Parts: sequence; C-alpha cells; structure tokens
Amino acid sequence: MTRDIIPGPTLERLPWYLAYISMLRASKVEYVSSTSIARELNVDPSQTAKDLSYLKIKGRTRVGYEVAMLEQKLSAFLGFKRSHPAVMIGCGSLGSALIADRGLQNYGLHIVAGFDTDSSLAGKIIDGVEIYPMSRLEELRPSLDAEIAVIAVPVENAQNAADHAVAAGIKALWNFTPFRLRTREDIVIQNTSFYSHLAVMYNRLANLHSPLRR
Amino acid sequence: MTRDIIPGPTLERLPWYLAYISMLRASKVEYVSSTSIARELNVDPSQTAKDLSYLKIKGRTRVGYEVAMLEQKLSAFLGFKRSHPAVMIGCGSLGSALIADRGLQNYGLHIVAGFDTDSSLAGKIIDGVEIYPMSRLEELRPSLDAEIAVIAVPVENAQNAADHAVAAGIKALWNFTPFRLRTREDIVIQNTSFYSHLAVMYNRLANLHSPLRR
Repeated sequence: MTRDIIPGPTLERLPWYLAYISMLRASKVEYVSSTSIARELNVDPSQTAKDLSYLKIKGRTRVGYEVAMLEQKLSAFLGFKRSHPAVMIGCGSLGSALIADRGLQNYGLHIVAGFDTDSSLAGKIIDGVEIYPMSRLEELRPSLDAEIAVIAVPVENAQNAADHAVAAGIKALWNFTPFRLRTREDIVIQNTSFYSHLAVMYNRLANLHSPLRR
Repeated sequence: MTRDIIPGPTLERLPWYLAYISMLRASKVEYVSSTSIARELNVDPSQTAKDLSYLKIKGRTRVGYEVAMLEQKLSAFLGFKRSHPAVMIGCGSLGSALIADRGLQNYGLHIVAGFDTDSSLAGKIIDGVEIYPMSRLEELRPSLDAEIAVIAVPVENAQNAADHAVAAGIKALWNFTPFRLRTREDIVIQNTSFYSHLAVMYNRLANLHSPLRR
C-alpha cells in the first residue's frame, strides 16, 4: 500500500469537518457541499475542497456530498474507526484523567495499560486499566502490542519517560508536557501541551481589559 | 496600564522555556543563556532572544539569566501566578477529568463551578467543585466572578453552550470540542481540540509502516 503524505494543517482541519458533518447527520441533513462546510467553519473554500480531495470521494453536482457517507469516510480516513493500543506513562492527576476520558476511545485511542515510577500505584486499576511499575515497560510492551505512549509525567521527567518508551519499542509519543522532547528521527512526536494554551488565553483576556500598545 | 500585543507563537513558546527553566532550577543550575535555551529546545536563537525580550529583563553578559528569577518572571508574565476563576460547561467524561486534573490549578486556572444540561448531575460534587444545571449559569456567573468558560460538551452542543456562556457574561471560551465556534469579536476563543491531534499522529505512524508516495 502506498499513501499520500497529508499535510499537518489538513489533518488538523479534517476533524473539524467531521465534527460539523456529524452534527448535520444528527440534524438529519442529507447532503452538504464543500463550500457550505467551508463557510460554516470559516475556512477558505478552495482549501476545504483541497482538504477533502485527499479522501478521493466524489460529491454529486449541485447537491454535494452525502452526509452519512462523508462522515463514515472521514472517520475511517482519520484512523478513528480502528483501535490503536496505547500505554499511559505517568498516572497522576492528568494521566488518570485521560485514562478516564471516554472520548479518546471514540477517536480510536485504546489505553491498555498505565505505567508510573511511583511503585505505590502498581496494581491499581483506573477505569479498568491496570497500572504497572515503570520498570516493567520494556518487558510488557510487546504483549500489549502498543506502539503509542501517552506522556503525562511531570515536566522534569518527560525526556526520561520518552527515552524509556522508545527503548521499549514505542513508535509514537503523544506528549502532554510542555517539554520539547528529543528523540530518534523515526519516532513520531505529537505535542499537546494544553497548559500552554492558557498563556495565550490569559494574554488575550488581559488585552480586552486594558488599552493596547501597538 | 498599557500592554504589548504578544504574538501567539511567542505565547506558545514561552511555556516551553518555562518548563525547561523549571527543570534547570530543580537540577540546581543557577544561570542560563538564551542561546542555550534555544539550542536545547530546537528554536532559532534569535527567535528565543526576541521572545524573551517581551519580559523586559536583562541577562548578565556571559552568564545569562538567573534561573530562579527567570522562572519567577516568566510564570508571572504568562499569568500562571494569578488565579483565573473559570466555569466548566459540560461535566461528562472530559469535563470531570479536567476538573480533577490538578495541573490546571498550577497554571492558574481555578474551576469554581460546573454546569451541565443533564439535570441528574445537579448537586454532584467533583473534586470539591459543585455541578449546577445549565439553566442557572446566567444567574450564578456574576457571583462566581468567572470570565472564562471551559467548553467540554458533546460537539453537537458546542455552539449552544458557547452562546449561553457569552449571554451569561463570559469573556473567554476555552473550547475542547473540534467544533469551530462563532461568536462576537470581543470574545476570546482558545481552541484545544486534542482529539484532532490523534489524526495527525495516526497518519504519521501509518506512514512509518508503508512506503510513501511523494
């Protein structure tokens, strides 16, 4: 199988379209055009047409895409329909919260085990997921069949956790810390440091309250 | 007070620096130069110097910035030292998880109440935070003194929740759904659709496994 390289921004926009289209389906809308998707989501219409062209599906002249079919194809294309086994590294407050979040499962991420350096957590079950000592990651990873590690450790342990995960055969790191991980070129890193977003929001909010100096 | 408009990318990078500097402090490092921060985080050194210039602090020739002082200033500059009261809208799986996550509090976000359209949740306490029926948001918002609403509802309810929050006097929406919200120009929207990041990661991971067509 050969695959296109999909640009990152396209891959980030496609789930927006999916969200909108799922809403249309829930409202029993049957057809939608790419221009109306673009208009609703404030995206340039030619960009939306280009983004959707990666799916290699045809809309019908004048009526556009069949909503149910487009939802199905988009979800499958984005990998949300398959189950991707993953391990959680760091099972403190954030890690536990992510394990407990059902949403991840809806988007195909299946957390099969947790690991933590705090050995007092070993044997604990969080929402059906067992927590193991970090030292057992290398031994257990192959049988868990997980290629993805979610990094939810304190920031000062992030690089260590990543190195450990890669040594155990992990191929993709979903990094929830604000630390910029360094690793081999063939390892996928996805950064989701949502605390960083707070800084942007606080600043914009403060600017609403005070005169701006441009 | 007048404020500079800080570019979004700078505001997203500053927390990376903070994370790295906190790690240095934990390792008892006393001084750090902006070039070594840049090198460690894979950022262009002139960009890092420019980013840090917004803090209006001086490093010392040759030795650079005092680590403890830089950490303190950065954290305060980013708004992480102040408490920002916020309401959680949608207290299902993700909303509850975010309420339970202690990390948000470390970054200054203080969730003071939860709201949900599911009236069976009313009166429930999640980690010390009381959940109210959504219909009471307008009445309770002023006494809660919250200007921020975290939107963690199902995607099809996102716009509704946002409209409701804005009508109740909320000034900033932290949107965890993949839906692109539409609202007044003077309302701050911060999108953190971390499920979208899964699509990017799955695609990169699949490309490791199959030949690429360029």
